[in-house]
Amino acid sequence: MAQQQQQPQLKGYTSYKHFNVTSAGPAFVVHVEINRPAKLNAFFEAMWLELGQIFRQLSSDPDVRAVVLSGAGDRGFTAGLDIHAASSNNQLQSSGALDVGRKAAQLRRYITEFQDSISAIELCEKPVIVVLHAISLGLAIDIACAADIRLCTRDVRLAVKEVDIGLAADIGTLSRLPKAVGNFSWVKEVCMSAREFGATEAQQVGFVSQVLDSKVAALDQAIKLAGLIAGKSPIAVQGTKELLNHARDHSVSESLRYTTVWNSAALQSRDMMDALSASVQKKKPVFSKL
Amino acid sequence: MAQQQQQPQLKGYTSYKHFNVTSAGPAFVVHVEINRPAKLNAFFEAMWLELGQIFRQLSSDPDVRAVVLSGAGDRGFTAGLDIHAASSNNQLQSSGALDVGRKAAQLRRYITEFQDSISAIELCEKPVIVVLHAISLGLAIDIACAADIRLCTRDVRLAVKEVDIGLAADIGTLSRLPKAVGNFSWVKEVCMSAREFGATEAQQVGFVSQVLDSKVAALDQAIKLAGLIAGKSPIAVQGTKELLNHARDHSVSESLRYTTVWNSAALQSRDMMDALSASVQKKKPVFSKL
Amino acid sequence: MAQQQQQPQLKGYTSYKHFNVTSAGPAFVVHVEINRPAKLNAFFEAMWLELGQIFRQLSSDPDVRAVVLSGAGDRGFTAGLDIHAASSNNQLQSSGALDVGRKAAQLRRYITEFQDSISAIELCEKPVIVVLHAISLGLAIDIACAADIRLCTRDVRLAVKEVDIGLAADIGTLSRLPKAVGNFSWVKEVCMSAREFGATEAQQVGFVSQVLDSKVAALDQAIKLAGLIAGKSPIAVQGTKELLNHARDHSVSESLRYTTVWNSAALQSRDMMDALSASVQKKKPVFSKL
Amino acid sequence: MAQQQQQPQLKGYTSYKHFNVTSAGPAFVVHVEINRPAKLNAFFEAMWLELGQIFRQLSSDPDVRAVVLSGAGDRGFTAGLDIHAASSNNQLQSSGALDVGRKAAQLRRYITEFQDSISAIELCEKPVIVVLHAISLGLAIDIACAADIRLCTRDVRLAVKEVDIGLAADIGTLSRLPKAVGNFSWVKEVCMSAREFGATEAQQVGFVSQVLDSKVAALDQAIKLAGLIAGKSPIAVQGTKELLNHARDHSVSESLRYTTVWNSAALQSRDMMDALSASVQKKKPVFSKL
Amino acid sequence: MAQQQQQPQLKGYTSYKHFNVTSAGPAFVVHVEINRPAKLNAFFEAMWLELGQIFRQLSSDPDVRAVVLSGAGDRGFTAGLDIHAASSNNQLQSSGALDVGRKAAQLRRYITEFQDSISAIELCEKPVIVVLHAISLGLAIDIACAADIRLCTRDVRLAVKEVDIGLAADIGTLSRLPKAVGNFSWVKEVCMSAREFGATEAQQVGFVSQVLDSKVAALDQAIKLAGLIAGKSPIAVQGTKELLNHARDHSVSESLRYTTVWNSAALQSRDMMDALSASVQKKKPVFSKL
Amino acid sequence: MAQQQQQPQLKGYTSYKHFNVTSAGPAFVVHVEINRPAKLNAFFEAMWLELGQIFRQLSSDPDVRAVVLSGAGDRGFTAGLDIHAASSNNQLQSSGALDVGRKAAQLRRYITEFQDSISAIELCEKPVIVVLHAISLGLAIDIACAADIRLCTRDVRLAVKEVDIGLAADIGTLSRLPKAVGNFSWVKEVCMSAREFGATEAQQVGFVSQVLDSKVAALDQAIKLAGLIAGKSPIAVQGTKELLNHARDHSVSESLRYTTVWNSAALQSRDMMDALSASVQKKKPVFSKL
Repeated sequence: MAQQQQQPQLKGYTSYKHFNVTSAGPAFVVHVEINRPAKLNAFFEAMWLELGQIFRQLSSDPDVRAVVLSGAGDRGFTAGLDIHAASSNNQLQSSGALDVGRKAAQLRRYITEFQDSISAIELCEKPVIVVLHAISLGLAIDIACAADIRLCTRDVRLAVKEVDIGLAADIGTLSRLPKAVGNFSWVKEVCMSAREFGATEAQQVGFVSQVLDSKVAALDQAIKLAGLIAGKSPIAVQGTKELLNHARDHSVSESLRYTTVWNSAALQSRDMMDALSASVQKKKPVFSKL
Repeated sequence: MAQQQQQPQLKGYTSYKHFNVTSAGPAFVVHVEINRPAKLNAFFEAMWLELGQIFRQLSSDPDVRAVVLSGAGDRGFTAGLDIHAASSNNQLQSSGALDVGRKAAQLRRYITEFQDSISAIELCEKPVIVVLHAISLGLAIDIACAADIRLCTRDVRLAVKEVDIGLAADIGTLSRLPKAVGNFSWVKEVCMSAREFGATEAQQVGFVSQVLDSKVAALDQAIKLAGLIAGKSPIAVQGTKELLNHARDHSVSESLRYTTVWNSAALQSRDMMDALSASVQKKKPVFSKL
Repeated sequence: MAQQQQQPQLKGYTSYKHFNVTSAGPAFVVHVEINRPAKLNAFFEAMWLELGQIFRQLSSDPDVRAVVLSGAGDRGFTAGLDIHAASSNNQLQSSGALDVGRKAAQLRRYITEFQDSISAIELCEKPVIVVLHAISLGLAIDIACAADIRLCTRDVRLAVKEVDIGLAADIGTLSRLPKAVGNFSWVKEVCMSAREFGATEAQQVGFVSQVLDSKVAALDQAIKLAGLIAGKSPIAVQGTKELLNHARDHSVSESLRYTTVWNSAALQSRDMMDALSASVQKKKPVFSKL
Repeated sequence: MAQQQQQPQLKGYTSYKHFNVTSAGPAFVVHVEINRPAKLNAFFEAMWLELGQIFRQLSSDPDVRAVVLSGAGDRGFTAGLDIHAASSNNQLQSSGALDVGRKAAQLRRYITEFQDSISAIELCEKPVIVVLHAISLGLAIDIACAADIRLCTRDVRLAVKEVDIGLAADIGTLSRLPKAVGNFSWVKEVCMSAREFGATEAQQVGFVSQVLDSKVAALDQAIKLAGLIAGKSPIAVQGTKELLNHARDHSVSESLRYTTVWNSAALQSRDMMDALSASVQKKKPVFSKL
Repeated sequence: MAQQQQQPQLKGYTSYKHFNVTSAGPAFVVHVEINRPAKLNAFFEAMWLELGQIFRQLSSDPDVRAVVLSGAGDRGFTAGLDIHAASSNNQLQSSGALDVGRKAAQLRRYITEFQDSISAIELCEKPVIVVLHAISLGLAIDIACAADIRLCTRDVRLAVKEVDIGLAADIGTLSRLPKAVGNFSWVKEVCMSAREFGATEAQQVGFVSQVLDSKVAALDQAIKLAGLIAGKSPIAVQGTKELLNHARDHSVSESLRYTTVWNSAALQSRDMMDALSASVQKKKPVFSKL
Repeated sequence: MAQQQQQPQLKGYTSYKHFNVTSAGPAFVVHVEINRPAKLNAFFEAMWLELGQIFRQLSSDPDVRAVVLSGAGDRGFTAGLDIHAASSNNQLQSSGALDVGRKAAQLRRYITEFQDSISAIELCEKPVIVVLHAISLGLAIDIACAADIRLCTRDVRLAVKEVDIGLAADIGTLSRLPKAVGNFSWVKEVCMSAREFGATEAQQVGFVSQVLDSKVAALDQAIKLAGLIAGKSPIAVQGTKELLNHARDHSVSESLRYTTVWNSAALQSRDMMDALSASVQKKKPVFSKL
């Protein structure tokens, strides 16, 4: 992990300030690290806008096939929104100059832009594996829900914290969590009570798919898994991401129809042939860039 | 629990006959108790109509922020439909006077009214925590699925019993259960076989979020959880309930859009400021009525 | 199990070549067995077309109330697509004669027909219990997802294998799996990595509802469960299947409305009365054919 | 028309104050008349609540098979909302005691109740024919859109008036108009400009299906049409209303599926046989009550 | 027209009994003619099953790019269902042997199969132009709604006739008509009253796009239009049919997304290049078969 | 009109090259003019990207309340895609370096970006009135469908031209046209045949809401209408646009629910009071910026 942090910023991503974007080791795997450890990786507006830009760039970068997302430092993935920054934010102040309807219009634009930044993770064509460790509150859950695969450490402290600051979570948690886990009673319990939950509970209800003993182990596992996925056909993997997200949001018959149209182009790529012939030759297949 | 039963009926709710509606202890928490223990809390038509009315009233009662729902007596939450009452019910008799199409129209009205009574729990703007203990069959599951948070006792005996009386459950179980738990194979198994399942299985598949050792313990825990939630911003809590139910039934993009519009008003309440300043002052926040 | 295989093909189903269709023992229970054990029950086109036909026939056969689906032999349920057959398949070859758009049209028809064959299991009006044992890869998951109830053996080896042959699974796994289990992170992990998972993991995430110690035990349990279900009102059981599948794909309010209309006819059958009077007389109810 | 007004209030409907509910002449046809001509039939809260109640009662009244809705007096169907009543309405006042979020909750309840009153016309199981004459502004359009068949007089003055009082129409016009007429450009033009349009334009864009020369003629024609419809099988007519409203809001495949389930009960009524045998005998068929 | 009828049945379509399937003249244009003029082209079960088969075959026949559908004889397109055949139909009889729920299951299968036969016209990948002349009642409207382009003669007599025989139309009219025309009031009027309407009204409300003076003229115009369309890129035309039908049933954003995926394969065909270079060379483009 | 062209580019919009963005005369009304008359206003990639940016900027510009969109010069609104530019476009070339699946991914990104540029007109919070004159082909229809109100001149020549260049229109026409007009047969006819249609036909089927005698007259009328709308409450007008677009894409019950939440904030603006008091004082109301 320490190694990760010493890696140079990836070419083409050097302008980003609040995130380390580095090669993770395995070919085609990029590591994005929230880099504000002194403030527990808490987010302010410029940070989430940058996060959105990074994932939009990764989405069409042919040198990227899988992304690992984690938070710098030992204290946590992120403590969520930087309350100090938020409370001095004009958008959220009830400015005397605006009546309620006008303020509402401003808020809609503000929330939409914020949502779009986080949704960029889901819309990124490449799979994103998030590693949650230690303090992972509020926005941490919004971000994790937008990622594809969630791993956590044994010591993780998770909470849907928003009701404690007087609002219903609006950056994605409430929209995605009910479809990410298999216990709607639990979803309501943690979202309404803001209580913390740990690794065991997270795994039991289906929020994470693996629990690792430490941040180092979790990051290693995430990178290993990302490497495994990055070695597969990118046509197959990226199609799988798209089709699973589409399936979550549509009826089975709609999803089957969309799948048919999607694969009518994808099956004409060279990847099936490349995969099959590598398999026959007991070699690792090599796939063209995508 | 015994204490609960001795509480006087809440002011404004004294006209209800089949349910005890009392203060549960913590501020803003109401306890609704099915009160027909001699008949295992089995339901007949007047009871579910009353249940619907109670939850419609609770929905807009500014003195209520969380509701606990349980069944009186030790023998169970409810044995479901009162078969004797049902079998003498005109609606379900094949009255010689009506042909099939006319009977179908009558049945549609009857089922819709019954569904509406139970859906009043889901549509109640305040969170509802249900405590399932001992015998909890048939309608018990319909009711539990319409509630927000499900707790049960170690000795609970649950079953989707309807196929055993020759019908597909139509008061909500089949509509809500597939989205409440995370094992569709299990949902079909218990709904098609009508077999009983207990607390361990209920927790494993995600039907309940907590299992407690006794009815007393479960009710205590429900009231404690309700109290915790009732202490939070009602704007935040009630928004969370609405947005989670909306998310269950819509695509993520639809849900994000709805969330944006919802919070464009909600964020202009005083609750965020009240929550933040209470937090700074290390005090328990006080929120206006809603 | 050996017994099963020696049963004669069921009357009316004798023309099928690749599947044993036999009486499973209990009244109204049919056993469909994939019968190509020498090739690990791998599928080629004629097989899945036949599978579709069998389930369409079972759907309206009044002598059938529950179906058990398994694979012949000890080595596995199915190894999935027969790669040799597939690679000599015209549909999937990039034939020089067709440009991309025309090839896409051909592929859409081909995939749709393949999907329709597997969806016949879901569209079969009778419940289908699938027994997964040993090797159960690729198409095994597509088939299992289309079945109603999934059991597996302790030694099962499951994998969503498609990315390993360069494509996104398009016969139903990606469309149904996200709604069958309660851990979306896990779904993405296994679908993108193609890694194997076993019985314990399958049960934990909610993919199967029971794990049995051996294929014999699993088949016995499946037949027993099928027998139990086949003894219930077929109006109730088949309505339950239809309404649960509808609920999975619709909002709760849509589902409640559809349920109302469905039961406005179903409740006029004799089954409720038959079930109730059998219950009073402590006898096993007898239901008319459906 | 004058005749209509002198009819006694229909038995069972005598408690309504703001509407005349009378027999319209032909068997099974009821005439509902907005009866506040001195104030141009403008609506205040008690009126729309009463309107909702009337149509809920008509919906299940077996003596009713078609409804005509019109406004008393020569000056118009309705001028819409009574602005004086509205401006003294607590719900719409920005009461100092409530913050924005709490006020929003109150407004949601208020608007929903108002919408429900008007939607009762659409949800009424019997067809509703509305006659629009002279002044027909604002709420007139909301009401007309909820009715099934729209007739108007040559002198009608229609307008979606809400933007002129500073709000987007929220009682149904914006939700239903885009699906009622065939010119979305025109819908936006009249909804955004609040400009008046007359009978010719209303017919050309598809808002009404017939234009008559006078109120007397229009009412006669509405009653005649209602009589014609009331003479048909009520199973067929009411099924047609339900299925057309369902079709408007669903995909064709969803609609076909729902139709199948609906008619699986309806086709078992006696009406087909009654209609066919009456046709053979060249007699007017007589159908049982529904 | 007379010419049409003397054409030999098209190769591959000679087994059909109730329909003439012939070359219409222009390359790639097929004429399907309902051929039971002695009975006013009234339909019985074997006929609609055959209709479905014909359109399924045309759908993938590479020699077909556009289809004209009309009725033989001068008396009309079709009088709809053959009432005599229908009244001796077992499916619609209330057979004493079946209770209501079982009869409902039988009816659902029967209606679904009937709907599927007519929907085959909509699902046919090639555009279908229907010519409605003289008597065109009941099923005529169901069929016309499933076709793509509707032409009619000046003397056409159209009616949604089903309520007159005691049922709500269930073969597609109620599902498709509200989205085919732009006057929902008119749709309800004609569907509830079963009254006839003629060519002028049909054109005014948007049911047909052209009215011709005679059957000969209408058939000529249909074949000319079919020929024009058949001369265009089949990739473009068939994509247009698919995307327009998809758009009718989905939100704009869903439709745009589906379009993107669809065209990602279609734009890789040779047709754009063929069309552009033919245009440069002022020649008629020639497109490969599809 | 000539006047319009001489207006200076609006402050803040001076960097745009291919469009004139000027004040249209009435307060808060902006005129956007496609400015490539020498090439019949044909579009290349940089132009549609710029179009998207302009409408995104107008969307939140508080000095804008209505937009008029037209094409410079007398020869037409736009001839559509610049075929020369398109045929040298890399995206649309079948580059030898990419296999089909990879090319498809590239095309999806390209089409999505193009669609997004045109959808910016629909997503612009302010109403957009488009004036179609003379040559208005292909992309002209995509653009017009994304605008709110469509006016045209007597001499307009409209066509959904895409099938003539070998593709199904994918920038919005096929997605929006079926819901913009009221004759689905006509939609299919013009989209499949690419034939031209004029002003009379456009008005009859509901594609435009007004036809004017000349471009000058049409532009005057558009500006007058825009001025009328810009004088109304912007809260009301912009809410109306949002709710009508939402209604087009949702069921009535979904739309009513969304409307309720939307107006729960909007009704708390000052605009209702400002509108009502201006009305009482017979003055033109003045509304705050939005």
